[in-house]
Amino acid sequence: MNALKFNETKSMDFIAIGRLCIDLNANEINRPMEETMTFTKYVGGSPANITIGMARMGMKAGFIGKVANDQMGRFIVDYLQKNQIDTSNVVTDQTGALTGLAFTEIKSPTDCSILMYRENAADLKLAPSEVLEEYVAQSKVVLISGTALAQSPSREAVFLTLDYARKHGAIIVFDIDYRPYTWTSREETAVYYNLAAEKCDVIIGTREEFDMMERFEGNVTNDGATAGKWFDYQAQIVVIKHGKDGSIAYTKDGESHKGAIFPAKVIKTFGAGDSYAAGFLYGLMQGWEISESMAFGGAAASIVISSHSCSDAMPTVDQVKTYIDRCNNGEIVSS
Amino acid sequence: MNALKFNETKSMDFIAIGRLCIDLNANEINRPMEETMTFTKYVGGSPANITIGMARMGMKAGFIGKVANDQMGRFIVDYLQKNQIDTSNVVTDQTGALTGLAFTEIKSPTDCSILMYRENAADLKLAPSEVLEEYVAQSKVVLISGTALAQSPSREAVFLTLDYARKHGAIIVFDIDYRPYTWTSREETAVYYNLAAEKCDVIIGTREEFDMMERFEGNVTNDGATAGKWFDYQAQIVVIKHGKDGSIAYTKDGESHKGAIFPAKVIKTFGAGDSYAAGFLYGLMQGWEISESMAFGGAAASIVISSHSCSDAMPTVDQVKTYIDRCNNGEIVSS
Amino acid sequence: MNALKFNETKSMDFIAIGRLCIDLNANEINRPMEETMTFTKYVGGSPANITIGMARMGMKAGFIGKVANDQMGRFIVDYLQKNQIDTSNVVTDQTGALTGLAFTEIKSPTDCSILMYRENAADLKLAPSEVLEEYVAQSKVVLISGTALAQSPSREAVFLTLDYARKHGAIIVFDIDYRPYTWTSREETAVYYNLAAEKCDVIIGTREEFDMMERFEGNVTNDGATAGKWFDYQAQIVVIKHGKDGSIAYTKDGESHKGAIFPAKVIKTFGAGDSYAAGFLYGLMQGWEISESMAFGGAAASIVISSHSCSDAMPTVDQVKTYIDRCNNGEIVSS
Amino acid sequence: MNALKFNETKSMDFIAIGRLCIDLNANEINRPMEETMTFTKYVGGSPANITIGMARMGMKAGFIGKVANDQMGRFIVDYLQKNQIDTSNVVTDQTGALTGLAFTEIKSPTDCSILMYRENAADLKLAPSEVLEEYVAQSKVVLISGTALAQSPSREAVFLTLDYARKHGAIIVFDIDYRPYTWTSREETAVYYNLAAEKCDVIIGTREEFDMMERFEGNVTNDGATAGKWFDYQAQIVVIKHGKDGSIAYTKDGESHKGAIFPAKVIKTFGAGDSYAAGFLYGLMQGWEISESMAFGGAAASIVISSHSCSDAMPTVDQVKTYIDRCNNGEIVSS
Repeated sequence: MNALKFNETKSMDFIAIGRLCIDLNANEINRPMEETMTFTKYVGGSPANITIGMARMGMKAGFIGKVANDQMGRFIVDYLQKNQIDTSNVVTDQTGALTGLAFTEIKSPTDCSILMYRENAADLKLAPSEVLEEYVAQSKVVLISGTALAQSPSREAVFLTLDYARKHGAIIVFDIDYRPYTWTSREETAVYYNLAAEKCDVIIGTREEFDMMERFEGNVTNDGATAGKWFDYQAQIVVIKHGKDGSIAYTKDGESHKGAIFPAKVIKTFGAGDSYAAGFLYGLMQGWEISESMAFGGAAASIVISSHSCSDAMPTVDQVKTYIDRCNNGEIVSS
Repeated sequence: MNALKFNETKSMDFIAIGRLCIDLNANEINRPMEETMTFTKYVGGSPANITIGMARMGMKAGFIGKVANDQMGRFIVDYLQKNQIDTSNVVTDQTGALTGLAFTEIKSPTDCSILMYRENAADLKLAPSEVLEEYVAQSKVVLISGTALAQSPSREAVFLTLDYARKHGAIIVFDIDYRPYTWTSREETAVYYNLAAEKCDVIIGTREEFDMMERFEGNVTNDGATAGKWFDYQAQIVVIKHGKDGSIAYTKDGESHKGAIFPAKVIKTFGAGDSYAAGFLYGLMQGWEISESMAFGGAAASIVISSHSCSDAMPTVDQVKTYIDRCNNGEIVSS
Repeated sequence: MNALKFNETKSMDFIAIGRLCIDLNANEINRPMEETMTFTKYVGGSPANITIGMARMGMKAGFIGKVANDQMGRFIVDYLQKNQIDTSNVVTDQTGALTGLAFTEIKSPTDCSILMYRENAADLKLAPSEVLEEYVAQSKVVLISGTALAQSPSREAVFLTLDYARKHGAIIVFDIDYRPYTWTSREETAVYYNLAAEKCDVIIGTREEFDMMERFEGNVTNDGATAGKWFDYQAQIVVIKHGKDGSIAYTKDGESHKGAIFPAKVIKTFGAGDSYAAGFLYGLMQGWEISESMAFGGAAASIVISSHSCSDAMPTVDQVKTYIDRCNNGEIVSS
Repeated sequence: MNALKFNETKSMDFIAIGRLCIDLNANEINRPMEETMTFTKYVGGSPANITIGMARMGMKAGFIGKVANDQMGRFIVDYLQKNQIDTSNVVTDQTGALTGLAFTEIKSPTDCSILMYRENAADLKLAPSEVLEEYVAQSKVVLISGTALAQSPSREAVFLTLDYARKHGAIIVFDIDYRPYTWTSREETAVYYNLAAEKCDVIIGTREEFDMMERFEGNVTNDGATAGKWFDYQAQIVVIKHGKDGSIAYTKDGESHKGAIFPAKVIKTFGAGDSYAAGFLYGLMQGWEISESMAFGGAAASIVISSHSCSDAMPTVDQVKTYIDRCNNGEIVSS
């Protein structure tokens, strides 16, 4: 059991707000992108991936976002719908904005990078007036993604969504998801990330992301102090990720929890955090213990990093359970 | 007595953050501006006016802001210093920004308008990194002006100042001061005004300004409900101004207070709100009752609207007291 | 007599295209602007001044330009009309653009500077589609001002006006009028100034302005070579101004002419070039010799620099003639 | 024989200035892009394609352009070099600009469209100061592409290149290549296209492109009048393309020439104009008759539209000759 109280009278399990984009993943991998000749198209963007993950695990999921009025935008909406994700609050841009692109370069399993196209991106054009209060009102969990704070009017749409979510008693999850592009400065990022984090029940980020948020403070790099600060606001769980050293979840009762890590035949590191978040939140929504939920997220992450894509590789509950069993049986070992 | 507790160990009484600009007031008045041939130059901007008002009343005052690196910018800093206002956190822009201008048109005492020049304005270039934490830390009162929220990076500088002010125990005053220019939309304004107001002890605005902030809510135009909302956050006093019908101050203890109004030989309406705020805050800092403070503000406002300028007409304590006495004696009646 | 052939069948003498703005001239002079308290408002902008000068000298004049939809814009149109200048191709902006401002600082007769407000200036919003071909067609002379090339869409409006003027046989005058603000780079300026100059019959500029135009060439600072280059295109007269050392006019027949200089009780140097241009062009249109026209321009310039304003001080023909007589009689000597 | 005189003392045959970008061509074709899952990467951009075409035909070719400082930019430079194209005047952007992208959608051989990414495109950042006069000076032919006129500073770089090319006696070819995106308005386009066309020896465009350039004139849609206008400036050959109805080349001597058309098994229509231009210019540089050159271009075009890519499919001289022979023998017929 964990301390989060989900409002079981609500009709939807999970809604995310933020980035919907396209990943163009190199087909010829283990080489620089200059030498890659073909790319495969997938739906991408951290909150999109998490939502797809939740849907794959059987959660009733929806999305608040904006897509370009072009072939890429239509592909995204189609893909979400095919994954049983409600798109009634996914708006189509009418100003000529473009779908954000991420070309992935996989030089080796540990040397991956991304070439981003984020100029005039449709997802950042989502306006406060396009967020439907009744849509937010019906969901048990609302996840906001930090990159949606990077520009106006999407930034204001997120703050309004936070207000709606608090007003209607949703559990609010903040996936920090800091990407330097599209932000003007680290100071700007820190200001808005802190304003948003004050209003959230669950905050998930890497140590580096929390450091960035604390740039106006004296400390820190001290996980306990970092988490403690947010318990003075609304937070009940703060998860601080330390890459392959694993994650620690702090809870308002003063406890901390470490999640199990699972082996993987790693192809690339992209998508690890998104599948982790989906698995972890799924566990919490089942009422599982924190550490059990973390382990479920960890196994989901290992599945995704063993695959070519992020969104398309999101596992079902059975797949995660089988993966855990096989790891426990020694059938899967790290590459 | 009022409920605000000012930290008497701090060395400064009052600091404001926000707009520093130039008023160019028509010398030939009671006509359209097309027929005005000469203009007189004054320091302007709502928070600048309030700060000058506080200094005239003997308060130890300072300012956090940014001025253009030109003759107008230097004039502003000179004028503040001549009025005993500390300018050690007034920064000079180095990017070619301009001083905001306000040309006033006075067709009649009740028909006044402003022609604004706010493109590339230096005051909105104030960056978070330019706000000195130790400067904020030393002041009993910190006033933030809503127009400083209109654009980045000034917007972020205000939110950071709010954090510093809370951390160091200042009484925070929010002068809503909504001016449509420089804002992208009313939705954008409402989002940031609400985020700021959550963190303030005293909130002062017109009924129309509070309506704008409530545009995502069902109600309202109900002063009591408007004020009540903010008492759930940090607010202790909420002042709602109804133009010439006077103001009502709501307090956290459930009381409401109406301020006295004083007659005036009105030349123009500009500056009424700024001198009111200075007088009211002065009274609160003396430990006066709310209604007594409101009356003091009301008399200060009547003095300023009887004069040609805003900043330059800000009265001393003696001038306000004398004005009140003369009104009470029937020596001053409305024009 | 000069070589220019004006088409006498056309109904208007002179049309200019370009900047219409407001000068705010310091009333208290011989001091830094920080100490100036009042300003007087005049119509300004180089092509506006020249057009006013032409109208004062009795020429039938008109203007192609754009003004802000505010009190300043209306004042400009009123003032032009009061000076008998046709404003039927002066368009009013509908996008919220502002009237350009020039605050003058007169520290001494030889130490003058200008503080410019040119952000979002209405005059630079003139679009090609707003230039009326039939309006251009009816004028003997069309003057284009270099500052109108500084930004789109005004830049394209000027090039289209050049096409119309050539097509309909106007004498085209290029007043280089280079002002660094609003241009992105000197390279950008040079490219467009050269493209425009290729199509003009009369080119007037300072030595520094011609140097800027020649920045991609090896030479020069050689007046003869500078002028010669343009005779390979359309130019018939090239005037190169050397400040108080006077001007030299080169003509296509290989001749050069030096203009007489007249004494003045100088108040400020602003407006000298504009009144010179008006007087010079007036002379040419009378069929006077080049040097006689230059002298007439020189006397007009001396009148303006002895006055507080630029536009408002533009002299009539009688005033210029009287001034020349008084100089010749020794009644006016330099201050 | 044709009338163009190429300066045989120059060391390079052909230089183009303008767009260097990436085509991402759908691998699964004959369907909407929503259903395309993989894309193949090619160098693209009209002037890049023409230059690659010229190099394939054995011409000594070079390029003036700017690429992004990323994997896409490096791929472009590598590809040009592998095709023996000199890249010493291809500059790398240092401001974070991106490589332009063109996703192609091939619904059917006659229903093709492009999804463009042109925001913050590196090629449009080429500055006048980055164009090397000595580089332009050494080439017999200089081709400018109209899309390079779409924005500053690339626009100014093109006008400066035109000046250098004229000064050093190159034959200048203007490939109109009008693409509505990145232009502000059709008026803006018309103004700069006309200014550029005045300085060119050979002008190649579609009927629609010439119509756009004539939008401020009364006529036209009359090929003869269109061509005639340019012979008053520098033009010697004007080619007006009428899609599958073929092209007509007008020459200054009053003649007109129609080019032969060759059958093709059409996959898509992209690249037809670029390969036509390369073949036609190759022919002119061999001193061939106009109509023979047009036929050679027409056969080159038929080869490219029968292939999946544009740049990569550019044929050698032998391939074009063989193709013509096979068509003449009836071995190739249209699909």
